[in-house]
Amino acid sequence: MDTQEDIERLIEAMARLPGLGPRSARRAVLHLLKRRDDRLLPLAQLMDKVGREVRECLNCGNVAAGDICAICAADKRGNGQICVVEDVADLWAMERANVFQGRYHVLGGTLSPLDDVGPEDLRIPRLRDRVATEGVEEIILALNATVDGQTTAHYVARELEPTGVAITGLAQGVPVGGELDYMDDGTLRAALSSRRKY
Amino acid sequence: MDTQEDIERLIEAMARLPGLGPRSARRAVLHLLKRRDDRLLPLAQLMDKVGREVRECLNCGNVAAGDICAICAADKRGNGQICVVEDVADLWAMERANVFQGRYHVLGGTLSPLDDVGPEDLRIPRLRDRVATEGVEEIILALNATVDGQTTAHYVARELEPTGVAITGLAQGVPVGGELDYMDDGTLRAALSSRRKY
Repeated sequence: MDTQEDIERLIEAMARLPGLGPRSARRAVLHLLKRRDDRLLPLAQLMDKVGREVRECLNCGNVAAGDICAICAADKRGNGQICVVEDVADLWAMERANVFQGRYHVLGGTLSPLDDVGPEDLRIPRLRDRVATEGVEEIILALNATVDGQTTAHYVARELEPTGVAITGLAQGVPVGGELDYMDDGTLRAALSSRRKY
Repeated sequence: MDTQEDIERLIEAMARLPGLGPRSARRAVLHLLKRRDDRLLPLAQLMDKVGREVRECLNCGNVAAGDICAICAADKRGNGQICVVEDVADLWAMERANVFQGRYHVLGGTLSPLDDVGPEDLRIPRLRDRVATEGVEEIILALNATVDGQTTAHYVARELEPTGVAITGLAQGVPVGGELDYMDDGTLRAALSSRRKY
């Protein structure tokens, strides 16, 4: 009778997911147990399938089915621009917004001396290679507007300077729909100093 | 290249779990994708294993590995008392508290005419059979202290009345560690009317 143990192990495994804790994991598992055939088993199979298929794109670091991801392999997308992001989640956010038609480069994190993450742990050397070989005209640094993100952006920009490629960064300012009253000082300062002609 | 589609399907499946939404499901899936070998694939296997093993105990409705659950099969537990709960989650809560050594009976929900849940949808006939055959002396109604739970408790008590078995319910009052200032009127009323000699 180790089913109860297996269930406990499943709850523990689910509780390790971000956003879930022991209590919500238990609820989720109970929900799955009650709907074994239409939820639990299909979810298990889907996870297994994705787990077996998925790789890291050797070119850009995106998730991929083979060695090269769908975006790197797409003929339709232009080679001229590379949008540099921290994480696959950020790439997905850009793709959901459907505002960029170039290629991506996923660094896989930010520089963080405290956590022992140096340039060689991110995908920066590979980015330098791509700039040299892919006919890139512009590198768009779309890193998070956090201290870590901006430090990393600064480092990447300095690294790529010798290549002569144009380097840009996302604008900082008031988000669309944002109310000034709720903005922090830094955002207001950035929005004011980058003000545009009306 | 349907990996992206599979990933989207996985996110949708995860988002249907209680406590998760589209955004947290995406975060969870990304987390799993990054830790494919030590998180994603083991979780998939564990889910599949549990999904294949788990059944509903024919006797009490608990989750079980075979036809009869570990609690119903345990010799150590007394037959004299049956603790009636709404859900497997409630049974787990009682077992975690480690305060009850008898058997359980899981109704599988509460009566709810609006949702079309009648007595025949719960495990009430089976409970009547158990009272008749298992030498039960006391039925402890441990249903939630909600309107639905208490309505169902009332119904079950009335159904079992002819059998002559003793029927009790969990005490209602101030929870241990609770502060009066934060209690609702109903709790205070119940606590006062069920006051005990000090």
